[in-house]
Amino acid sequence: MEDLRVDADRLRASIEVSSAIGGTENNGVQRCAATDEDKRMRDVFAEWVRELGCELRIDEMGNMFAIRPGRNRRLGAVMAGSHLDTQKPGGRFDGILGALGALEAMRSINDADIELERDFIVVNWTNEEGGWFPPACMGSGVWTGSISKEWAYERKDRDGKTVFGEELARIGYKGSFPCDHRKWNIEAAYELHIEQGPILWNMKQRIGAPKGILCLHWYDVHLEGTANQVGPTPMEGRNDALLAFSEMCQTVNKTAHQMGNMVATVGEVQNYPNSRNIIPCRVHFTVDIRSWDDKHALQAWELMRREFEIIAKRLGCRIRSEEFWKVEHATFDQELVDLVLESARELGIGGRRMVSGAGHDMSEINKVTRGAMIFVPSIEGRSHVEAENTSWDDCARGTDVLLRCILKMSQRGR
Amino acid sequence: MEDLRVDADRLRASIEVSSAIGGTENNGVQRCAATDEDKRMRDVFAEWVRELGCELRIDEMGNMFAIRPGRNRRLGAVMAGSHLDTQKPGGRFDGILGALGALEAMRSINDADIELERDFIVVNWTNEEGGWFPPACMGSGVWTGSISKEWAYERKDRDGKTVFGEELARIGYKGSFPCDHRKWNIEAAYELHIEQGPILWNMKQRIGAPKGILCLHWYDVHLEGTANQVGPTPMEGRNDALLAFSEMCQTVNKTAHQMGNMVATVGEVQNYPNSRNIIPCRVHFTVDIRSWDDKHALQAWELMRREFEIIAKRLGCRIRSEEFWKVEHATFDQELVDLVLESARELGIGGRRMVSGAGHDMSEINKVTRGAMIFVPSIEGRSHVEAENTSWDDCARGTDVLLRCILKMSQRGR
Repeated sequence: MEDLRVDADRLRASIEVSSAIGGTENNGVQRCAATDEDKRMRDVFAEWVRELGCELRIDEMGNMFAIRPGRNRRLGAVMAGSHLDTQKPGGRFDGILGALGALEAMRSINDADIELERDFIVVNWTNEEGGWFPPACMGSGVWTGSISKEWAYERKDRDGKTVFGEELARIGYKGSFPCDHRKWNIEAAYELHIEQGPILWNMKQRIGAPKGILCLHWYDVHLEGTANQVGPTPMEGRNDALLAFSEMCQTVNKTAHQMGNMVATVGEVQNYPNSRNIIPCRVHFTVDIRSWDDKHALQAWELMRREFEIIAKRLGCRIRSEEFWKVEHATFDQELVDLVLESARELGIGGRRMVSGAGHDMSEINKVTRGAMIFVPSIEGRSHVEAENTSWDDCARGTDVLLRCILKMSQRGR
Repeated sequence: MEDLRVDADRLRASIEVSSAIGGTENNGVQRCAATDEDKRMRDVFAEWVRELGCELRIDEMGNMFAIRPGRNRRLGAVMAGSHLDTQKPGGRFDGILGALGALEAMRSINDADIELERDFIVVNWTNEEGGWFPPACMGSGVWTGSISKEWAYERKDRDGKTVFGEELARIGYKGSFPCDHRKWNIEAAYELHIEQGPILWNMKQRIGAPKGILCLHWYDVHLEGTANQVGPTPMEGRNDALLAFSEMCQTVNKTAHQMGNMVATVGEVQNYPNSRNIIPCRVHFTVDIRSWDDKHALQAWELMRREFEIIAKRLGCRIRSEEFWKVEHATFDQELVDLVLESARELGIGGRRMVSGAGHDMSEINKVTRGAMIFVPSIEGRSHVEAENTSWDDCARGTDVLLRCILKMSQRGR
């Protein structure tokens, strides 16, 4: 058992099967939750679970659980997994490595004919990305009770045309098992994932063990100026909402730089009427602030908001801002995090402690059980883009660490 | 003849008929060229021309000419008019006042049973706004030879679905008369128009006599950065194309302020992938520069472009910029401009010399004949928006000045 490794070729083959389902011309994948592509991937996943001789349980949110019984079923299970849906479009590894890596770990345990003490559960969480049906972490969020099932069912796609619950039923994955963590007995949960940032890549480290996930604060800002024909309207006295936006965008970046220990980003902007020869009268933009220190993030927003008001007043624009979403920082289980580093060291891979800047299903799962994550390098730190990439060696190394954590956890606390 | 005035009530009634064709909920009008609304307005205009007992000539571009014969048909004609199409959406007066005001002037001359020396031609130019089928000044542009008829016919709508020439034929206004100024003998052309800026409104002046139209330089700038998940990507080392844009937007405004004698505007911006939690990797934006001094405008662009390069380099973004459209400043005919001020003075209205910041059909017409414009105040300087407004009194005053100019010009140069 000490020498057990996953089958790197088989892991790669399974990821390549996934890459072809919703694969894009630019080497990415577009497979949003509750679409036909999602159904096809789920069917493949279900078939692979059946090949392992496992029970497959599908809950009301379409979360898929492959359950491998342990020797002592009264003990809490060890869970591992991630998600198989992608951004629109996204890459080949985000989520997918964690779900298929966990399945490969199960295959390896089966091949070695090891009877674990605890149940081992591989999970595919529904709609982690929220790429087509926002918000993100929908399946795990309902499971932990953060959002209600009914509310999730009613979510509309970005075009506002279809409803999530109906689409989930349409693709045949609205299961009957209650989507409720209280129906489960989980001792520990692991999620293997690409880092989605440049830290490991830049430091030439192979494994990251995040101590937790940064807080995430999302804000919306709405500006209103005055539309006018550009030619006859002098520079003086204009109320140009896009000009106001441009100052505010700088404020966001400047504040994050000056305060440190955070990232802050303007990712989205809508400009009206967005016409070459009309002074912009209406702008909506978003602010995303993340930090390990929730108060620090709030302070940053307070500074930004105050400077926004000053800019808006000076340029004669009305401003309205609102909080859209707020997730506090999550601290992973110390023992589980240590086990990641211990396993990586024993496997001769090495690793480093870090934090996760991105949210994950583990942000949710960690609320109701002990959780931790295993990061592998994203080449050039890129993700949520089609060019997202991780070397096959790193995929295998990360999965080896996951397997080792599962084996160790399964024996602990008997 | 010295006392002749237009019928203010009849003028208002005709503008109100127009306001209802494509009228919007917010008191504006949406009536883009070659749409069903345009056809309905043209049908009404054609009917009014028939009621005046005039010949109506429709050319290959759908330009509509109402011809009232003068005593001496060998003399060049006096032309007046503007356009009946609008922005998407636009206001009730832009173009419309000039076209229906010219028609009202013709009605008044008919009512007074005056025989003019010269032919008097009222014209409705096709697609001045380019609101649905860019570019602007399409009908007058083909007429003067600035653009070819074939090229104009092939223009696609903003959604890229329909073709201008086909839509013009579909609404029944692709005429047979050659669209070519050389087929006409025009001595002078006037265009009555709302100012579309705040000068007259702020100065409480009723009539403006622009000496010409500012040059217009349009540029496109394309930025390319690197998309990444925002959470895990540190502030340092980002290539945020939207952040680069925000600096450039300030550069545009700052340069115009510092150099003076110009306006410069960023009206349009597209951001990709425009997602709350992805660092923007691609931005397109437009720059509109206008000045009476073409070289001054070019120097401004040169300064902006150099600063853009510096910003792009510092933020690790690639940049590409290109000229999209360039129109030199136009100088109107001195005699015709003076006649506007003289007429306004004689009518006891008063007026001031100024420049036009916006382009007009007269930008084109003035290239091939003697031209001038008559401006009336835009309330609060607003235009190209549904709230665009001009008092009925000012509409009537401007039309009285137009009528007087037509009468005077018709007698001159015999």
